[in-house]
Amino acid sequence: MNYKQYITENKDRFLSELFGLLRIPSVSAQPSHRADIDMCAQAWQKLLLNAGADNAKIIETKGNPVVYGEKIIDSNSPTVLIYAHYDVMPAEPLEQWITPPFDPIIREGKIYARGADDDKGQSFAQLKGFETATKLGLLKCNVKFIVEGEEEIGSPSLETFCLEHKELLKADVILVSDTSMLGIDTPSITTGLRGLAYWQIEVTGPSRDLHSGIFGGAVANPINALCKLIAGITNEEGKITIPGFYDDVEEVSAREREMMAAVPHSDISYAEALKVKKLTGEKGYSTLERTAIRPTFDVCGIWGGYTGDGSKTVLPSKAYAKISTRLVPHQNHEKIGNLVRVYLENQVSDAVQIKVESLHGGEAYVCPLDIPAYLAAEKAYEKTFGVKPLAIRRGGSIPIIAVFERVLQTKTVLMGFGLEQDAIHSPNENYPVDLWLKGIETVCAFYEEFS
Amino acid sequence: MNYKQYITENKDRFLSELFGLLRIPSVSAQPSHRADIDMCAQAWQKLLLNAGADNAKIIETKGNPVVYGEKIIDSNSPTVLIYAHYDVMPAEPLEQWITPPFDPIIREGKIYARGADDDKGQSFAQLKGFETATKLGLLKCNVKFIVEGEEEIGSPSLETFCLEHKELLKADVILVSDTSMLGIDTPSITTGLRGLAYWQIEVTGPSRDLHSGIFGGAVANPINALCKLIAGITNEEGKITIPGFYDDVEEVSAREREMMAAVPHSDISYAEALKVKKLTGEKGYSTLERTAIRPTFDVCGIWGGYTGDGSKTVLPSKAYAKISTRLVPHQNHEKIGNLVRVYLENQVSDAVQIKVESLHGGEAYVCPLDIPAYLAAEKAYEKTFGVKPLAIRRGGSIPIIAVFERVLQTKTVLMGFGLEQDAIHSPNENYPVDLWLKGIETVCAFYEEFS
Repeated sequence: MNYKQYITENKDRFLSELFGLLRIPSVSAQPSHRADIDMCAQAWQKLLLNAGADNAKIIETKGNPVVYGEKIIDSNSPTVLIYAHYDVMPAEPLEQWITPPFDPIIREGKIYARGADDDKGQSFAQLKGFETATKLGLLKCNVKFIVEGEEEIGSPSLETFCLEHKELLKADVILVSDTSMLGIDTPSITTGLRGLAYWQIEVTGPSRDLHSGIFGGAVANPINALCKLIAGITNEEGKITIPGFYDDVEEVSAREREMMAAVPHSDISYAEALKVKKLTGEKGYSTLERTAIRPTFDVCGIWGGYTGDGSKTVLPSKAYAKISTRLVPHQNHEKIGNLVRVYLENQVSDAVQIKVESLHGGEAYVCPLDIPAYLAAEKAYEKTFGVKPLAIRRGGSIPIIAVFERVLQTKTVLMGFGLEQDAIHSPNENYPVDLWLKGIETVCAFYEEFS
Repeated sequence: MNYKQYITENKDRFLSELFGLLRIPSVSAQPSHRADIDMCAQAWQKLLLNAGADNAKIIETKGNPVVYGEKIIDSNSPTVLIYAHYDVMPAEPLEQWITPPFDPIIREGKIYARGADDDKGQSFAQLKGFETATKLGLLKCNVKFIVEGEEEIGSPSLETFCLEHKELLKADVILVSDTSMLGIDTPSITTGLRGLAYWQIEVTGPSRDLHSGIFGGAVANPINALCKLIAGITNEEGKITIPGFYDDVEEVSAREREMMAAVPHSDISYAEALKVKKLTGEKGYSTLERTAIRPTFDVCGIWGGYTGDGSKTVLPSKAYAKISTRLVPHQNHEKIGNLVRVYLENQVSDAVQIKVESLHGGEAYVCPLDIPAYLAAEKAYEKTFGVKPLAIRRGGSIPIIAVFERVLQTKTVLMGFGLEQDAIHSPNENYPVDLWLKGIETVCAFYEEFS
């Protein structure tokens, strides 16, 4: 029996097992769901054993437990480590769901549920691909799984977990199915992710809110000062003005820029979908380049003074902003953090005070296009989808991937099977059944090609 | 009997009448107090009749009623119109009051209550000065009172009221006791008030909040755009860059600037009181000039994007700000409003959309120092306080004063008897009894000097 037949014969059971997992509301951000987190970890342990793992265990961390499972064929064979997460984003706002988020259902060929794609659906492609390859004797490499329960809250326990379990996690490559393809007929593999640095700024003027008529003109207004500061960070060419900011930025090769230019994309329909009059960004780069291989500066939030109805004439005491930069390969988020802090402290009007707090940071990641696992994945996608997948860099960040590289010295191949329209993190998250089955096939094909 | 004796003999009754008025929570901003508004208007009608008015009536408007009273000595004599307001600001936050806001009490020589100064206390100086002058036969001019109930919400009905009652309000000068002096031993008369223009800006980027990783770099961020816009409105010299903004600004004479320089003031203690490291503002002007005779630009509020705890990487759809300028004599707030709107629409990045809404506006006012009523007031203060009052311009705005000038063609003398430390609009508003009595004396002295 070939793997396609096995998948077809077992499709209903696969779906029923996935639905069982989707019914567990393993929301990591909400402490009230802690029992569901544990239940979900136990479900994964059982799923791994049933799929053919030699052993599977739950390993406690300071946060939510990690599920570990393995099948060792031969200690001299290469080893694949699969990383996935069993936690999901909160389902709120609940009233916007057509059917309840934790009551999975198939409508028009799509599974609707929180986690249908991210990451229960996608991780099942790995799990069932592994089961199929194991049961059919196709497996020629060792396989390890780590499935964590804190990805949606920034994986706070996973770096420590990696440091403490380096031997256990030893592998030749890490596979992650948690990203999107360009389209269901346009397979693609994400080969780059941007890094991130994120700060909160507090600017303080007078010690209390003042009457803007009595004091205005003589006392620095912290909102005015904050706006000046933020405005100065970018120039008319869309470049970031902070000294040293671009020092480590990777210059992407002409060849890779040509590949990016070949990706199907229309600025007009992109702008129309977002209802913006025109696109804008760093001079000299295309939209796909601006969102993937170039760093950015975005204010994610700002607040201060009177924000209610009507007018109140106040010269406020405080103003705040949450600012962020996306980083590209070789930019170290801690070094950038220092540059940004020093810049802000130097630039700010000396008539106000500033406090800069780092809230979040992670490195960018780039997958080489010539490692065996990438080449095997490329062939596997081509076998399933009929066309060679495009290698694309994406603008988002999965900081844990950079941690794997730094701590475990292991590269990751992002074998994603999602679509942008799957509404992950949003109401009515969904995942096409056909794509899910193709994902399982692609994982089987990977095992055929790899090693 | 001279007026000082009359005031001393009647002091307890004056206080008891004021306390009666302070007990009425005539808060105009809160519709639940509408019955208190009416009760307060009726109290004023009675107070005017008892003080010696020939007649007094309540005149309904679209909003809260206006109380009108008059004493006509001789239609050929000059007429003084006294403007005051019987409404008060909300008392919240109530928990910060040492004693209840509508239960007046004297502690350490000060009356504590909402309205103790603004404007029930100060307007009582006018009322009881009028009573004293009337009872003692000192009155040599006609006196009219209008007491409105919407000053604290921007006097929305008063311009129409003035237009409809021009004949009734005909006078040679308007007196208002609703401003502050430099100190209890440093009498001063406010001779200038700044105007005001106030807008809300809405900047729209994409039609929905976007993931800042996936879209950041290619799509204009409305907060970034708003900060650029606001930052561009002022330059390094603290000047406003909007073309035409200074065209009508009155250049204050060297003589008046000399008078301002003579006002007791210390930049160091001013900065220390506000806990700011240094003062700042338009180059070439002193602190007192910056807050009185020069226009300003202040952001009163700003908001957009994620403002909760921690980090959320979002490229928001909308950003908002409430911005304001204080205006000086000859600057027309509607003309300035157009300049600002056109400037913002021209300057804003064409990758976003902007909406500018005018929320509030009013003209500046300057009192000539040579009109008979100002000269009489100056002598009256000198008689009571022992020193000649300083003529000072203040940075705040009382837009209705400019309306009086425009609609009634009548100048106003701002015979204020408040102090900056009276905590008007704040918890524990208070007013020194001695100052209040001196205010009554000064009004009597004014009647002696005027005409």
